[in-house]
Formats: sequence, C-alpha cells, structure tokens
Amino acid sequence: MTTPAQPGPDAGLLSPIRAGTPAEAAVDDRAWLQAMLDAEAALARAQASLGTVPPAAAATITETARAELFDLRALALAAREAANPVVALVRELTRLVARAEPTAAAYVHRGSTSQDVFDTAAMLVSARVARLLLTDLRRTAAALYTLAADHRDTPMAARTLTLHAVPTTFGLKAAGWRDLVLDAADRVERVLESGLCVSLGGAAGTAAGYLEYAAIAAADRAPTRADHGTYLSDLNTAFAAETGLAPQRTPWHSLRTPIADLAAAFALTTGALGKIAVDVQSMLRTEVGEVGEPAAAGRGRSSAMPHKRNPVLTTLIRSAALQVPLLTTGLTQCMLAEDERSAGVWHAEWQLLRECLRLTGGAAHTAAELTEGLLVNPERMRTNLKLTGSQLVSERIAAVLASGLGRTRAQDLLAETSSTARRTGRPLAAVLADIPAVAAHLGSEELSALLDPAGYTGAAGTLVDRMLERPTEPDVQPRPHDPGR
Amino acid sequence: MTTPAQPGPDAGLLSPIRAGTPAEAAVDDRAWLQAMLDAEAALARAQASLGTVPPAAAATITETARAELFDLRALALAAREAANPVVALVRELTRLVARAEPTAAAYVHRGSTSQDVFDTAAMLVSARVARLLLTDLRRTAAALYTLAADHRDTPMAARTLTLHAVPTTFGLKAAGWRDLVLDAADRVERVLESGLCVSLGGAAGTAAGYLEYAAIAAADRAPTRADHGTYLSDLNTAFAAETGLAPQRTPWHSLRTPIADLAAAFALTTGALGKIAVDVQSMLRTEVGEVGEPAAAGRGRSSAMPHKRNPVLTTLIRSAALQVPLLTTGLTQCMLAEDERSAGVWHAEWQLLRECLRLTGGAAHTAAELTEGLLVNPERMRTNLKLTGSQLVSERIAAVLASGLGRTRAQDLLAETSSTARRTGRPLAAVLADIPAVAAHLGSEELSALLDPAGYTGAAGTLVDRMLERPTEPDVQPRPHDPGR
Amino acid sequence: MTTPAQPGPDAGLLSPIRAGTPAEAAVDDRAWLQAMLDAEAALARAQASLGTVPPAAAATITETARAELFDLRALALAAREAANPVVALVRELTRLVARAEPTAAAYVHRGSTSQDVFDTAAMLVSARVARLLLTDLRRTAAALYTLAADHRDTPMAARTLTLHAVPTTFGLKAAGWRDLVLDAADRVERVLESGLCVSLGGAAGTAAGYLEYAAIAAADRAPTRADHGTYLSDLNTAFAAETGLAPQRTPWHSLRTPIADLAAAFALTTGALGKIAVDVQSMLRTEVGEVGEPAAAGRGRSSAMPHKRNPVLTTLIRSAALQVPLLTTGLTQCMLAEDERSAGVWHAEWQLLRECLRLTGGAAHTAAELTEGLLVNPERMRTNLKLTGSQLVSERIAAVLASGLGRTRAQDLLAETSSTARRTGRPLAAVLADIPAVAAHLGSEELSALLDPAGYTGAAGTLVDRMLERPTEPDVQPRPHDPGR
Amino acid sequence: MTTPAQPGPDAGLLSPIRAGTPAEAAVDDRAWLQAMLDAEAALARAQASLGTVPPAAAATITETARAELFDLRALALAAREAANPVVALVRELTRLVARAEPTAAAYVHRGSTSQDVFDTAAMLVSARVARLLLTDLRRTAAALYTLAADHRDTPMAARTLTLHAVPTTFGLKAAGWRDLVLDAADRVERVLESGLCVSLGGAAGTAAGYLEYAAIAAADRAPTRADHGTYLSDLNTAFAAETGLAPQRTPWHSLRTPIADLAAAFALTTGALGKIAVDVQSMLRTEVGEVGEPAAAGRGRSSAMPHKRNPVLTTLIRSAALQVPLLTTGLTQCMLAEDERSAGVWHAEWQLLRECLRLTGGAAHTAAELTEGLLVNPERMRTNLKLTGSQLVSERIAAVLASGLGRTRAQDLLAETSSTARRTGRPLAAVLADIPAVAAHLGSEELSALLDPAGYTGAAGTLVDRMLERPTEPDVQPRPHDPGR
Repeated sequence: MTTPAQPGPDAGLLSPIRAGTPAEAAVDDRAWLQAMLDAEAALARAQASLGTVPPAAAATITETARAELFDLRALALAAREAANPVVALVRELTRLVARAEPTAAAYVHRGSTSQDVFDTAAMLVSARVARLLLTDLRRTAAALYTLAADHRDTPMAARTLTLHAVPTTFGLKAAGWRDLVLDAADRVERVLESGLCVSLGGAAGTAAGYLEYAAIAAADRAPTRADHGTYLSDLNTAFAAETGLAPQRTPWHSLRTPIADLAAAFALTTGALGKIAVDVQSMLRTEVGEVGEPAAAGRGRSSAMPHKRNPVLTTLIRSAALQVPLLTTGLTQCMLAEDERSAGVWHAEWQLLRECLRLTGGAAHTAAELTEGLLVNPERMRTNLKLTGSQLVSERIAAVLASGLGRTRAQDLLAETSSTARRTGRPLAAVLADIPAVAAHLGSEELSALLDPAGYTGAAGTLVDRMLERPTEPDVQPRPHDPGR
Repeated sequence: MTTPAQPGPDAGLLSPIRAGTPAEAAVDDRAWLQAMLDAEAALARAQASLGTVPPAAAATITETARAELFDLRALALAAREAANPVVALVRELTRLVARAEPTAAAYVHRGSTSQDVFDTAAMLVSARVARLLLTDLRRTAAALYTLAADHRDTPMAARTLTLHAVPTTFGLKAAGWRDLVLDAADRVERVLESGLCVSLGGAAGTAAGYLEYAAIAAADRAPTRADHGTYLSDLNTAFAAETGLAPQRTPWHSLRTPIADLAAAFALTTGALGKIAVDVQSMLRTEVGEVGEPAAAGRGRSSAMPHKRNPVLTTLIRSAALQVPLLTTGLTQCMLAEDERSAGVWHAEWQLLRECLRLTGGAAHTAAELTEGLLVNPERMRTNLKLTGSQLVSERIAAVLASGLGRTRAQDLLAETSSTARRTGRPLAAVLADIPAVAAHLGSEELSALLDPAGYTGAAGTLVDRMLERPTEPDVQPRPHDPGR
Repeated sequence: MTTPAQPGPDAGLLSPIRAGTPAEAAVDDRAWLQAMLDAEAALARAQASLGTVPPAAAATITETARAELFDLRALALAAREAANPVVALVRELTRLVARAEPTAAAYVHRGSTSQDVFDTAAMLVSARVARLLLTDLRRTAAALYTLAADHRDTPMAARTLTLHAVPTTFGLKAAGWRDLVLDAADRVERVLESGLCVSLGGAAGTAAGYLEYAAIAAADRAPTRADHGTYLSDLNTAFAAETGLAPQRTPWHSLRTPIADLAAAFALTTGALGKIAVDVQSMLRTEVGEVGEPAAAGRGRSSAMPHKRNPVLTTLIRSAALQVPLLTTGLTQCMLAEDERSAGVWHAEWQLLRECLRLTGGAAHTAAELTEGLLVNPERMRTNLKLTGSQLVSERIAAVLASGLGRTRAQDLLAETSSTARRTGRPLAAVLADIPAVAAHLGSEELSALLDPAGYTGAAGTLVDRMLERPTEPDVQPRPHDPGR
Repeated sequence: MTTPAQPGPDAGLLSPIRAGTPAEAAVDDRAWLQAMLDAEAALARAQASLGTVPPAAAATITETARAELFDLRALALAAREAANPVVALVRELTRLVARAEPTAAAYVHRGSTSQDVFDTAAMLVSARVARLLLTDLRRTAAALYTLAADHRDTPMAARTLTLHAVPTTFGLKAAGWRDLVLDAADRVERVLESGLCVSLGGAAGTAAGYLEYAAIAAADRAPTRADHGTYLSDLNTAFAAETGLAPQRTPWHSLRTPIADLAAAFALTTGALGKIAVDVQSMLRTEVGEVGEPAAAGRGRSSAMPHKRNPVLTTLIRSAALQVPLLTTGLTQCMLAEDERSAGVWHAEWQLLRECLRLTGGAAHTAAELTEGLLVNPERMRTNLKLTGSQLVSERIAAVLASGLGRTRAQDLLAETSSTARRTGRPLAAVLADIPAVAAHLGSEELSALLDPAGYTGAAGTLVDRMLERPTEPDVQPRPHDPGR
C-alpha cells in the first residue's frame, strides 16, 4: 500500500476543549483503527473458542492486529472506494497475516462484514470514553458535594428572568448542579452497563456467513436450523467476552437503539455541564463577581487586554455544550436507515459519534477542574443580596400581609411600594413602615426581621441535606470485563 | 376579561399525522389550560390535606378550575404581558373563586409560582400522551409479532447500500421492527414510571413561599428549618398523589433532566417508527412491490392521477419522524438555562414539547394502523430474489470455494463470475459451472442447492424465535394513580 | 362533508411571542385554507386569460373559493387519507362550484396537482408574512437609528467573555444591532423579490396535465412540442400575475431552493433579533441595570414576586430565536427529497414552515416594541465603567508604555498592576504611579487623562456615523403586484 | 515551547467523503495555523502601508509567519489556557520575530485582538474552500448539462410518493439537478463576492488599540475623532488588499452575518448534492437499475459479498448531506452571542465551520466524479415505464374522457379500471376498451396512441431547453485578488 499524501495532525487547534484530554487520545484515528483491529482479533479468538477457527490462526491474527503496522492514510483513502475503511483494512490485515503464517490468512474476518467490525469498534471506543467520562463526572460530583456542604447556608440572590427574585443559598445551587451531574452519570452508566454491545450480523443481519463457515469447519456435523441459533448465540457470548462489551440482543445493523441511547446520554451530559457553565458565567460577570474560575498561572490572558483573566474553563465547556446536541440529533436521525444497511445513513454516524465522544469527554474533564477549584465569594453574594433594598423578600411580606389585607391587596401594595422604593431609592422597609395598613399589622422590629434576606431561604438547607444523601458513586458493581485494552 | 380577536381553530390542516388522533386532543390549548387548572386544584387539595388550606377552599378551587369558564384567547394574549400564561390564569381563577366564595380566593396559587403550575401541567399532559403512546406502541408490537411469526420463513432479498445483498426473511425484518418498537415502549415506560413528576419549587426553587404560608397557617408553631424539609416533603407527596404524577426528587425549575429524558424517549420512538416507514416505502416502490399499505376506501387518491394509491400512512409517519428529532434537540438544548429561571430558555420549551408530543402520538397511532393492516406479498419477494440470478448467494459460494481455493482467490473468482453474469445475462450457476476450478470442488447438484436463496437465510428463523420471546407487554406493574382526569 | 370532532382553537397559549400578532393571523389554518383557494382561483383565471378555461367558469371558481364555505376540520381529517389536504379541498370546491354552475365544475384544478396548489399557497402565505416582517424590521431599524444617534457618545463598558474589556459606546452597540436587523431585512427582501414564486409542475413536474387540457381546449390546433413550452411559459406568467408572486424559474416540486432560501432568511432574522435580546438581557440584570424594557401597565408581573418587572419582551424574542433555527434546519434537510415527489419529506415541510413564519413574525413585531421603548440609563453605564478602577483602559496604558518599555514588558507590567489593584482595592492609577518605570514615562496628569474610560472609545463615534448612513429603507422599488388579497 | 503529547494524524478514517480531497488539505490544522499567520503578516503589512509600522518590521513578520516554524500541538494545548489559539501564537510569533530582528517584535499583532486574527483566518480558509467548491460545482453542472442534453427525450417513469406517476424524461431530471447545483454555485459565489471579509475590531469592536498605536506612531499629529474613522477605514482597505478578502462593513465580532450567510450557502450546497444522491440511489436499486455509478477498478467492493458493486459515491455524498445542515444550524444559532464577545458561543463556531467546509468540499468533489461518469440505462427506463401497463398515463386518459364524461366521472372510471388492471393483470388499454362509455369517445387506435408513455412527457423537452440556457459559468467577473496564498 502506498500513501498518496501525508495527512496533517489532528492537534485540536480548533477544539481546545478536548486538546490533550484522555478522551481525545481515545478516539483519534489511530485509536479507532486499533479498535477495528481489536474487533477482528476478538472475533477470530471467539471463533477459535468455538472450534471454528484454529487457535494458532487466531493467535497470529491477534499478534498482527496492531495499528502501527498499518498505513492509516492509505486506509482512509481506500475507504473512498468502498464507502468504509474496513474493506481495505481486511485486505491489508490478510496480507500481513499471510506473511506471518500463510494458513492463517483464510481466517481473517471469517464470515464477517464491514459493519460488524466497524460497529464493534465504535462500541469499544465509546465504552472507553464512557468510562473516562464517568470518572470525570464522579470527580465533578465529589467537588460539588464539598461546595454544597460548605455553602449549605451561604445566602445569595436567586435570579429569575435575569433579575433578583428571592434569596437562595449557594449550597442549593451547587447541590442542584451535582444532581444534574449525577443524572448524567447514571445515564452514561446505564448505557455502559447494557447498551454497548458487539455487532454480529454478517452480510445483512442473518449471520449466514458466520454459520456457513462454521458449517464448513464442522463438515461432519451439518448445523441444523436449531444449531444455527445455538452457534450464533455462543459466538455472541464469546465475542462479547473477548471484547469486554455486552453481547448484542439481536443483530442491529439498521436497528440503531444502541447509538440513539448513547447519543441521549451524551446530550444530557453536556446539557448538565453546560448548565453549570452558564450559571458560573452569570455569577462571575464583572458586576456580579460572586464566583471565579480556578486561578492558574497565565490562564485566561487576553491577547489585547493585560488586566483580564478570562473564564476559559466555562467558555470551553459551553462551547462543547452548544455543539453536542446537534451532533446527537444527527445520530438520532440516523435511526431512519432504510433496508438492511443504508447507503449513507450509517456512514453519517461515524464522524458525528467521534466528535460527540471527544467533546463530551473534554467537557467533563474540564468541568472536574472547574468545580474542584471554583472560587466562591460569600461576601460578594451578601453585598449583592442588598442591592434591591430588601425587595427580594417582597413575596414574604406580601404573604404575611395577605392574612390581614387579603392577598390581592397585599400584592398590589407590595408592587406599589417596591416601585416607590426603586424610584426614590429609599429602602423598602422605610417605605412600608410609612403605610398605616402595614404598620397596623407589623411592628418595625418584626418588619426588619422579615426583611432580612438571609432569613428567607425557605427549604434550601434541608434540600441540600437530602440532595447530598444521593451517593456520588453508584450502587451497581462494575462489570467484570474491561473493554479497555 | 375581554378578547381582542378570535383565534382560528387548530384543525391540523398542515399536520395530518395527528389530525383527529387522541394525542392531538390531549395536547391542544384547551387541554393544556385544563392541565394548568388541574395543577392549581391539586395543589390546593394537597395543601388542604396538610392543614394549611381550609378544605372548603380547596373544594371551591377544584370546582372552579374548569377550562370552559376561562377565555383561552384572553389568557394567551395576557401571556405576552407576563411571558407566561399562568399569571393571568391565576388572576382569573382568583376572581372566579372569589365570586363563588370570597374567603377561598386567598388560597388560590398559595405560595406558588408560575413555573410550578406550568411544569406540573406539562407533565400531566405528557403523561397522558405517554400512556396513549404506550397503547399504540403495544398495538404495533402485537401486529408485528403476528407478521414476524407468520413470515418466519418467508425468504426475501436483504438489501444493503440499495442493492440485493444476501437472502433474509420477512419475518426477521418484522421482528427487527418489533424490537425497535419495544425499545421505544420501554423508554417511554421508564420515563412514565419515574420521570414525570410534579414541580414544587416556589418563586425560585427554595419553596419559601409554600413554607411561609404554611407557617402563617400554623401561626402557633413556627416551623424550624427541620420542619421546612418535612413540610415540603409532605407537600410533594400529597401533590403527587393528587395529580397522579411522581413526586419531584428536587425542585427542577432550571435542572431539566425530566424534559431531556422525555425528549430522548420521544426521539427514539419516532426514530423507530420512521425506520419502519422507510423500510416499507423501500419495499412498496412500483418496481419492488413486496408490501402494500392497508387498503381503505378512497385512501391514497391523488388529485391528478386516478390510478395511484399512495402510501399515505408511511408518508405521514415519515413526515413526523423527520420533524421530531429537531424539536427534541431544542428541548435538550434548553438544559442550558441560566440562573434559577432563564429569560427565554424555559419559554422555548413549551411549543417544542407540545409539537413533539402530538407528532409522536400521531405517528404511533398511524403505525398501529399500518402494521395491523400491512399487505405482504411473498410471491413478489420470491420473484425479486431471483432478479440477480443467484448472485446474492455469492458470499456462500465464496465461502464454500474458499476451503479449496483460498479465500482471496475464491472472492476474486466470485467477483469475476458475478460480473460476467451481469454482463451476459447468464445465470451465475451456469457461469460458475463452466469454471474448472469450481467444477473440481462442487458438483452441479451441490451447486444448485447452494445457489437456492431460500436455503441461505442463516440464523433468521432462530433469531425470529428468540426475538418473539420478548414480551409485548412489560413485566412492570402500572403505577396505581392514573394521571388522566 | 361531516366533521367527526371539533378542533380546539389555536389561541397561542404556549407561544405568546406570536399571540395576537399579525403574523399569527396570516398563517393560521383558515389563512392557509384561503391561500390554497386563492391558488385554485388564480390558476383558473390564468387559464382563462389564455383561453383554455371559459372566463365564466373562472369567475364562478373565484367566487366560490372562499374559506368560510369550507369545513376546515373535515379537510384536515381527510388529509389523513390523501397525505395532503388538497385532494379533499378540490373535491369540495368542485362540489360547491357545481352547485353554483354545473358547467364550471370541470374547470376546477384543471390539469393541476396537489403540490402546485399547496406550494403556491405556501408561497402566498410566506409572502404575506415576509411583508409584515419587513415592516417590523424597518420599524426596529428606525428605532435603533434613534438610539444609536442619541447615544453616539454615551460611554459604557464593552464586555468580552463576561468581563469588562475596554470602553465602547451604547451608540455603537445600537448601531450594530441595527446593522444586523438591516442584514435580515435585506435577505428577506431578496427572497421576497425573487424567491417566492408560483408552483406549476403538474402531476410530476412535466406540466403534462396542463398541456393536455390546453390541447383539448384548443382541439383545432394540436400543440406541438414548441407550443408546449410557450403555453407553459405563458401560463406561468399569467399565474404569477394573478397571485402577485414571481413566476417559477422551473417546476420545483422536488428542487427546493425557494424553501431553503426562505429558511435561511428567517433563521438569520431570528438570529439578529435574538442577538439584541441576549444583549439587552445582559445589560438589564439587577447588578448591571444599564437598560430597561419599555414600561407598560402590569407588564412583567410575576405570579409570586410583587416587586419584579420581568423583561418579557426579550424573553419572548429569545424563546423564538432558540426555536427557529431548528425548524429551518428541518426545512433545509427537506432538500433531500427523493424522486419527483418524496413520500414524507415534502410533508414534513408544512408545519415547520408555518411555525417558522409565525415565530419570526412575532419576534419582529415584539422587537419593534422593544426597541421603540427601550429605556437607557447612561448614568448607570458610567457608574459601571468605574467598577474596575480604570482597568479597562489597561490596553491603552500598555500601548503607551510599550514604546518606552517594549511591548512584552509593558503587558506584563499591566497584568501585574491590574492584579495588585484587584487584590488591594487601590485604583490602578495609584498603583501605576508608584512604579518608577511608569513615572519615568508618564506624568500623573497624563496618566489620569489616559485612564479616563470615556476618552478611550476608539473609532466608536465615526463607526456609528458610517453605520447610520446605511438607509433604513431599501433602494429597490417594491414589485407592482401585491401578493396580499 | 514543549509539546506534552504528540497528536495523531487526521487521516479522514471516519470521513472518507473528504479524505484526500483538496478541501481537506485546505482546512486542516496546519492550514488554519498558516491562515492565522497570514492574517498577522497581512495586518503588519497593511499597517506598514499606512506608515504606522516600519516596513522592515512588516517584512520580518511576514518572513517569520510560516507554519512550519511553529509547534502545532503546543499551540492547541496552550489554547486551553486562553480559550483560543491566538494568544500563544502571538507569543511564539513575537519570540521568533525577536530572534530574527529584535526591533520588529513590538509590531507583531499591534493593536489587535485574538478574534480579529482568528476570524480573518477563518474567512481566508473559507474563501479557499469556496473557490474549490465553485470549481467542483461548475464541473458538476457541466457534466449534468451533457446528461440533460443527451437525454432530453429519454422517457422514464416519474415517481411520486414512491410510485410511478406519469412519464417524464431523464433529461428533465438531470436538468433539474443541474439547476440546483447552479443555485448552490450562485449562493457560494455571492458569499465569496461580498461576504468573506477581514475582521478589524480590536479588543472589543471599537478598534481603539489600532488607533492608539497609530497615534503613538504619529506622535506629532494626534488623531482627532475624524482621523479615527479615516485611519480605520484606510486600514480596513489595506488589510483587505493584503489578504485578498473583502473589507469588513463594520466590526463583526458579535454581529455574525458573514458566518450565517456562509452557513446558509453551504447547507444549500449539500442539500443540492444530497438530492442528486438520493435520486441516483432511488434509480439504481437492484429492481430499478436505470443508472449506475461510474465504474472504477475495485470500487464498491463489499467485505462480505463478492458480487456487489456498491454505490459508494452517492453513499458518501449522502452521508455528508445528512451532517452539514446540523453543523450549519450550530453556526446560525451562534448568532445569539451576548456582549461584545461571547464566552463560548464564538468558540463553538470553529470546529463546526471547519467540518462544514470539508464535508461540503468533499461532497462537491465527489459529485463531480459521480456526474461525469454516471451510467445511464435508457433501455431499463423504457422497460420500467411499462411495468404498470400504461397506468401512468391515466391522468391523460382521464383528461381526454373528461370532456365527454365530466371530470369526476372520468376520474372515478380511471380509478376503477386501474384497480381492475392491477387486480387482473390485464393491460389498462384492454380494460378500458371494454367499457362502452370509453369506446364511445375513443377509437382503439386513438386509445393506443394516448396510452404510449413516451408520448406523454408534457413540456419536458422544452423545459430542458430553457434550463440549459442558464450558463454554467457565471456572468460576473472574478475579483482581482486571490485570497489563496
């Protein structure tokens, strides 16, 4: 094989969210090539374990299935001739195996089809990224646990429709972020536990090639139809064991639930991380200043403005969260794959999936760093709480006055006095105290107490306590086989 | 309230997939209004059950919470002033309750916020559609069970990249469709069992308003912080019981896992149904003719061509399957909601969710009709199988010859002879028989047997058997409370 | 025709951005029905003008083509039988015409096909909304002109990555918004001028039906092939004249450039309006307070918090801007329509298009109100400018010092002093003045002058002047025919 | 700079549509890096031309601005610290320039900001791909011209909703494809002519840094506000001239019309190419066989089935067409960028844009190959035309009979007889001839003539003639400056 042109490196120049992260290395072209070779080798070993491929041939195939022996660019270019990279990979693997041991060559890709190899490889890669993702999501959840616990009672302004609404606590906010992160981890875990499976359909989903070769191997015992099912079932189990993936429930070349489930889990994950990013950004604006990104030497420098320390971590996380749902949409749309294998729909999945995996993996890695080092400024939160002169407890005052004045009148009165306070700059307490109807119901001390924002955080504390009871680590035990290499 | 302009009807003129289906009626403006009123009434009854609202007031509110008493258009127009329809609904409900019983008016929407009412209503509506959806998905799965069982051994051409690949059976295709539909049903079921919950956050997620009013109600016992958690927890349970929804795990105004989970389930559902539609369309093209849509008087007529009977059911299902993933993308993107309530992101969810519900519901309803009446033409399948003159068993012949000739030579030989067969129009069997290397390994009878497509369906039969062991109905028991009215 | 079930109203309850706006009324089911009838009537008149339909028949058809004579719900339900609403509409129109004048009935929908009528109607509706849109975009641009001119020299902090960067002016911000709005108007105008055309393809794009009936009408002169082209060309011109749309360039049943162009223009429009909305929201947060939405009695009230005045206009605009790009994506994806008419892809366009039209129309209407009444608070802008103690002119100081110290040293020095100023709370001027290397280059007065943010607004003023030279109204003259009724 | 880890190559393994195509090389990390360096060098030269940078310094910067001198991976990793790759690039470029000529270093990136450099580079890369794209689109249009002209009168079945509708010609189909491709070329041309411009905003859109350094350079003449505008305008013109891009109309850091226009043009392009792909696939299915992809040795081989020659070109084109609209959606959504530079929204554009450019470029390159070598089988078209036994001229017969029987009765009669023909397998002619009402109006010879599909192609021929009058090459002259290097 000769290589017409050297491809450039994929350095991540336009995608810093994943540059240098473990997820990036797990999904690059070399990793994907190795995963396809892993699938070929595992298939040969699985067949060997069932007696339909000689063990020595499987061993030779396994030894030869090393990415560094292959010309990646040549495979990519050849993929333009077959609409997938597996055809050329099989040709080249067969050649290399034949060189090592001529009799073994016939057992490469035996009974198989490109999609079985590619989809199994995609699941191997996905499983590796999913495990990296879980690690980083658990790290993030642990960091948020600490933040929520430390700031269980740190009051701050809750904001709705951009404006101060009522008081809340930073602990409740952090606990909510953690809950989302754990939701994401649960869904990734669920997919990892049951959704990432081998593909074993043969040319068009009937596994006929596998069975035919098995029959040839066991020429003395022609498999009956019943045998067919048994052999396929055994091969499925063995292939799964060799790869560390789950067995398939049924051939899924054009029944794409595994991809759609994976897409949903990743979309939810970047949604959760993106929510944290936009919240942190809302809180660290110059005028707000309630939190800061972790300081690191030189980080956040601007090419023009020496004084700035830009919030780079949330910026990158948000950039990923804006992209991933569109990629996962593509993956979900690819469920509409006509026939036993679509002419184009399957092929559209590949790059979408890879990009989705590394953006999500990169975002989780970055989120762990963000949350582990997040700087919290309770003083500034308290200062900001006072900005509206107690107006953000107007709900409470209205409630208290409602029992005497009726709710509508109480609400109208608070709307009016708030407006007066805003217009005149006087504190709401003072404006209220001047109103006879208010004074009739509330003494000035009582009014002062009611107007303290820190005293009106509702169930925030107990909510935090309950939310932190949710374990950071899942109850379920990890599966014995590790799909990593 | 006066109405500036009468709104037109939502007749479904541009969305026939849902026109007249149960899902349509379940999500229209009237239904949504009623669901919001249901939420208000359930909240009052839940508070009454905890002693913080007088039972008589809750009863009056419940009696008044009837959509027909409200001016829908006026509410919609008023929503432009508040950015949501609940503010005006509460005002109007309060007015109507006051007219019935002045003392009850103060208990309307007590301690609550627009988003609690709207989101609880959205979950009520979603639960109703999810139940309709499950019914239709189960109907569809049952119809596909019959098709798969009846055609377990009906051979047909499997097609990959638009071309005949190897033989398969129609039973395996139908069983695969059923598997997808059951995957969809499982995910909808899972969401219905645990994901559709009430919303109870108060003004900004701390539930402070609910607690404040509870404290006022129980003036003699000032709630401690611990009491706060207990009261909120009790209210959550009671509100869930009154609505038939699940309790919330935590206030979720801007933690949108429930919406994202719902979106994922609906996207997967239309993906599954859309896959069936594109497959059926592939099979019913004029030149293929292997299946037909259920005949119904007048259905499928064209305005120009009297002879046509258009495949309207798959056309409509596919039209929905093309739209829904985009809508669910929007719902997933809405996870990036800043602060305790976003200024616009929450609001973008509403119409996307409604449209998603009715398109998916309509598609499932239509799919049940399609699959229950699908016309299958095994004769045509058999005829089509012969179109390539046995070429679609070339994989098998290559496998058999590989043991004698080596795989590469066998594959090349089949590629050549297939090409010759295509070019000359001679049957592959004849071309093959002329080749000495083939004749040396295979007698002509053996060759004939190997060339019979019906004999090369692999594990199709046993796969169908196993796939049909998956129950159409789930094992899990339905939850006791019905969220329907 | 009987109606199985009464449809609910489409009151806009879940879509307040368009409730009550002109765009809403222009695209509802009744309007769409009328547009289809307009297309049928225009087609008959166009054929009459060419002598292939009796003028009296065309007149009867025109008189009968009134939406109020039709049962909308019955048509929508019948659309489930034909996969489009036109088949039943033609049947009913024929019946009604026959009742008025039996001999005219044969001329209804003569030679036509459902898609010609539906697509022409879609273009009519789109043209009406596009004109409404232009009006509101021009209103918005005019309002922004005033804001930009009034605040040409009003300094405020420019913000990048959430933080104060350097000074800018509110005039430049408003001028930028205006530029975007004019970009949107230009693209809508361009589509309106040339992209919105009639559809005239007949059953499958060859216009054979139209020609056949024309030949029958002119039995004495059998049209030659050349005649074919002439007749179709004449009919195209006449149909365009009768509808007020542009002639088609070629039949476009499955060549969907007009839809894709329209989608792109609408996506850009909501992008432009959404940008304004997020900017305004960024500026009106409680802590920032630099602008406010127009005050209106009662607007922005919260159901829980009496003191709040929520930014409802930007909230609604943003909600639309989040939805529209997803809908337009669907429209663009629908370019992949197989064959002469797709089974499902065409059908997916309808609801996406309608929703896109009314959301964009509603957003533009709302943006006009927002910008015409936007409250600007220059005082607060000035106050905020001082928040970082002159740090946002650090770029300038670095530039000035660079000539003496070298750029790298100057930038590092500014980074250090800014950090010191942040940490100690001292003004940057004071910190700088203490550094001998600075003092050596800049006297304290010079330093003070350089540190005045209002003096460092760069080309803002002249940029505003040039941007306001762009005319609010376009140069191009409106087309003579008005596609409105 | 040290490199922590070597990045893998971007070989295109998962994206064969672009592997080895010119567009791929034009957008890879190295090309993007070079484009950023080109922007820096052009900026220095532009400033030199205005006398604000010494010409020798600009020359040194230009000589040093070569990608091979930079460590790509180090830049990508450093981008994680600044949220963009320009900060480190400027640092490194400054270091390298200083090594060559210490006095020149101060003039690197003078007055500039990361976004000016990055966005100008993005436009340079986009312009290069747009030119490649135009070349391939024109090649495709030329090939389709030949197909349309050669098959102007080759009859084939038009298909609507998957079924034979009426006759058409292959020439009309090819002419329609060409029209779409020319639409795409026009839109790309339009963007290239006016939309791809330099970026010159400085730190936050006021260009203050550029002006400050200009003032320092011309210390004797302090620029007035009017000077400001003149200098910026001159710099804009000079920068545009040096890059070959258009001047900016106004600083556009967060006014993203250029990106949205580009996105729309690329989405329309892949829509056009994808339409061709799905049509070709519809026509080359085994049962249809009317066209074939260009033969090439070994192309289209399957890893399992020796007989197959898969349609790889259309498969790859379709895979790109499924992905691109989602990427362009992201680009359009990025118009909602808050403030003067968003924290994440800008950053989300980069990878979306690059992927969009190379998928579209690859698809156009592949489409040129597809259309230049498309195999057309007129025989098979004729055979298929007869499949329905003349039913696809039923529209015509109905029209002819309508004048005698009335249209409704004629249509019903054709619906009945078509159904009888289908059910009994008798030709429609025979069934019709048996009906007295038909025989009364049409002699059997006349009936036979009317039933000939080749005689009922409507205006197909003249439409082709007119469509081919549209020039393949545009009238407009190319712009003098070539943005390529």
